Amino acid sequence: MLPRVRAAVAQLVSALGAPAPAGPGAERGSEPPPEPQPPRCRPPFLQLSPGELRRAGQRALRAVLSPRRRLPWSAGYAEVINAGKSQHNEDQACCEVVFVERRPSPRGQLASREGGREPGRGRKGFYFHYWALFDGHAGSGAAVMASKGLHLHICEQLRDLVDILQDPSPPPTCLPHNAGAGFVEPSRVSLAEDDEEVPNDAVPRFHLEKAVSHESLVIGAIENAFKHMDDQMEQERGSQHLSGGCCALAAIYLMGKFYVANAGDSRAIIIRNGEIIPMSREFTPETERQRLQFLAFLKPELLGKEFTHLEFPRRIQPKELGKKMLYRDHNMTGWAYKKIEEEDLKFPLIYGEGKKARVMATIGVTRGLGDHDLKVFSSNIHIKPFLSCFPEVRVYDLTQYEHCPDDVLVLGTDGLWDVTDDKEVAGVVMEVLMSYEPNDPCRYTMVARELVVRSRGTLKERGWRLANDKLGSGDDISVFVIPLGGPGNYT
Amino acid sequence: MLPRVRAAVAQLVSALGAPAPAGPGAERGSEPPPEPQPPRCRPPFLQLSPGELRRAGQRALRAVLSPRRRLPWSAGYAEVINAGKSQHNEDQACCEVVFVERRPSPRGQLASREGGREPGRGRKGFYFHYWALFDGHAGSGAAVMASKGLHLHICEQLRDLVDILQDPSPPPTCLPHNAGAGFVEPSRVSLAEDDEEVPNDAVPRFHLEKAVSHESLVIGAIENAFKHMDDQMEQERGSQHLSGGCCALAAIYLMGKFYVANAGDSRAIIIRNGEIIPMSREFTPETERQRLQFLAFLKPELLGKEFTHLEFPRRIQPKELGKKMLYRDHNMTGWAYKKIEEEDLKFPLIYGEGKKARVMATIGVTRGLGDHDLKVFSSNIHIKPFLSCFPEVRVYDLTQYEHCPDDVLVLGTDGLWDVTDDKEVAGVVMEVLMSYEPNDPCRYTMVARELVVRSRGTLKERGWRLANDKLGSGDDISVFVIPLGGPGNYT
Repeated sequence: MLPRVRAAVAQLVSALGAPAPAGPGAERGSEPPPEPQPPRCRPPFLQLSPGELRRAGQRALRAVLSPRRRLPWSAGYAEVINAGKSQHNEDQACCEVVFVERRPSPRGQLASREGGREPGRGRKGFYFHYWALFDGHAGSGAAVMASKGLHLHICEQLRDLVDILQDPSPPPTCLPHNAGAGFVEPSRVSLAEDDEEVPNDAVPRFHLEKAVSHESLVIGAIENAFKHMDDQMEQERGSQHLSGGCCALAAIYLMGKFYVANAGDSRAIIIRNGEIIPMSREFTPETERQRLQFLAFLKPELLGKEFTHLEFPRRIQPKELGKKMLYRDHNMTGWAYKKIEEEDLKFPLIYGEGKKARVMATIGVTRGLGDHDLKVFSSNIHIKPFLSCFPEVRVYDLTQYEHCPDDVLVLGTDGLWDVTDDKEVAGVVMEVLMSYEPNDPCRYTMVARELVVRSRGTLKERGWRLANDKLGSGDDISVFVIPLGGPGNYT
Repeated sequence: MLPRVRAAVAQLVSALGAPAPAGPGAERGSEPPPEPQPPRCRPPFLQLSPGELRRAGQRALRAVLSPRRRLPWSAGYAEVINAGKSQHNEDQACCEVVFVERRPSPRGQLASREGGREPGRGRKGFYFHYWALFDGHAGSGAAVMASKGLHLHICEQLRDLVDILQDPSPPPTCLPHNAGAGFVEPSRVSLAEDDEEVPNDAVPRFHLEKAVSHESLVIGAIENAFKHMDDQMEQERGSQHLSGGCCALAAIYLMGKFYVANAGDSRAIIIRNGEIIPMSREFTPETERQRLQFLAFLKPELLGKEFTHLEFPRRIQPKELGKKMLYRDHNMTGWAYKKIEEEDLKFPLIYGEGKKARVMATIGVTRGLGDHDLKVFSSNIHIKPFLSCFPEVRVYDLTQYEHCPDDVLVLGTDGLWDVTDDKEVAGVVMEVLMSYEPNDPCRYTMVARELVVRSRGTLKERGWRLANDKLGSGDDISVFVIPLGGPGNYT
């Protein structure tokens, strides 16, 4: 399965005219590879000319970019580069309508190998809509790769479920031997059929069988797609000169429901009739403290004798040995005092507050893709075991509520949320939408632009400043605004 | 510290006239101990005579018991024995007003050893109110011990904090060498004072110091009290013939706030102006699946080659090897298909649904006190590593809202909640309170009684039945109803 996705990604990358992330030396193997060129591509749906791409990178301007053509589902989008914290815009975005084609049956594959065609069969499958933001760190390679590949991995995972998801009866617990990679016969060999082979017992055999919903199969498919994307990065990081990692936030619309998957510190909220509905939570050293401490407690070798799994409110000084200090262990949410021992003088696994909180003094997000080579500075201690590539997936059922054109799903990287809170975002959304006709397809892009402009601020003598003269966001900012009222006219 | 608590527990047990849990042989050591007598005591505040105690155990009656005298804070209480699932009522309860006395200073202790007294000092400290329910399993020993000791452990933890909690300035991060077990000098040796000993650095030394609130110190104290209670059970389980374990739900009122600590499947809710505010969540194999699977994934030796950490919707049969089956791993909330391998034929760590869900086919709650000797049936596989004795503590600030006499905090063991949901409980609360004068101190006990009666049902030909003819709760049921409007007149 993976090679297929990899090929598709390679094809896409070349078709889109983006600079191939792999240096030529990687193919030949004999000469040393040249210094990798960091990718400077922006999302293809922006359709930037080379001149526009150059201008987009000018720090004095920080021009807000949005797509020229209407995006599927009339979604709005806008982005702006950071104020100098990295060479390129390390955010990436993707917006696609993806066809999930049912995997051909083993019989069909056989016929195809023999040069024949499956008779009388069209392409069977379904579409999903997809919007995603990737916030890269330590380079933009991981974000670029994820923006080109994650939806293909999701598609790949869903291909095994085409028949099951379209069948209103509960998903079968067990699939037969002869199913290909997850293939299900059209007639669905059910558990009941399977049971007929076995002599009847006096007691029901599976009286404790758990019912699994279609929705939870989609969630499982998205979770495993994130894992496969991360595995691909691990395998190809050498050939693709892939360094760093990225946060990933994806919204998938499938069969009446939005699935919002988040791994990192981006955020999604729904604004419905003025009410804010959180559709994600952030994964940071602070929010995941107990998971990380529990892992370090069980596997202290991961700390390389340099760190302690206990949390302290500040560094302890050697002269404080024997005094009592506030601490938190993995199973505590409150604080207590403990006598300081030699072991406590090590650096805490989790340290710092808010945006400054770090895992092993290195990274400020605890979920995402990539980072396979990330180590504690000048040490051989790997960070990756503490990071999770698994997203939290929240589901919003569109059919449960009558939506008006002003109800939207907003996805934003932390560049937006660091300076503009949920309530302010909701205020901007309502304010901007009110000034456009409900059927104006540009209105969602105008909202996205306004959110980006207000979070970036205006360049003054003392840097980028918000309307209230506070510092604007110096980070890359990317925003999708997706109307819940419906997809609009796309093909 | 522990011996002191132990002594206090022993004193309490004997003062209350309850049968001493330790058999006499335990002291002598030479002869084999006689068969332990299971404790048949009920909460002392019920003041039951021996005859009443006997009647309370009659299964045909299942008489609802409530206290004769008014409880502190005018709290209501009622309980009933199970319908035959165990020999005794395995629930226990405690209701106390506890004085937390500031630990004497080392100088004071010295003076005392010399026969002197600290001049001019009264008992310095504060009170907390305490209500707790303990739902025992595999015997009532753990529940009895916890009902007599947990509040003393909480008191013990808080003794170190008497000065700190009464001082409005933030708690000190570090305490000096000369503090006794957590003792703080009246004048509070602050960090700043301490810093004066050190040469000044150019940069601020603790610019990343985390602020810790008084509230989180109380939470930490409660968490550690649960741990110490559990440790005491481990140490004394031999001498006290203590088998089994118990869920623990405790509400502590301290300095304007309710702290509700829960470890197990009991539940607390607040009903305020008809609105339901959950004050706890249940800890079961289903709600804690990911924590348990993560532990088993990291420490597979805990599974003793008998169990797999993966979850499946049902048992897999050997003949299904090679087929595909739905599964969930520790990092998934959704389901996906995997090819069945030899390893998957082992019994799943988590199995069953709802009240039938079990850890290693053995226990249906995942937090609580005790269970140190619990093993998988006819094996040497210990369950305790998967259980946590740490509660989740939720805080409710009484001062943030004007409460009326009908606003209450309800604590109940699962015997209540299995047949009566939050909404029904709120309905009964409002209905009963309406029929009593707001200043009638009996009204909260009448609510507790009514909740117990409605959940137990009436004995008919086909067992205990609810008003709707469904099966009533056959479990022990215990309920506290605590008015949020204020403590009333207690001494």
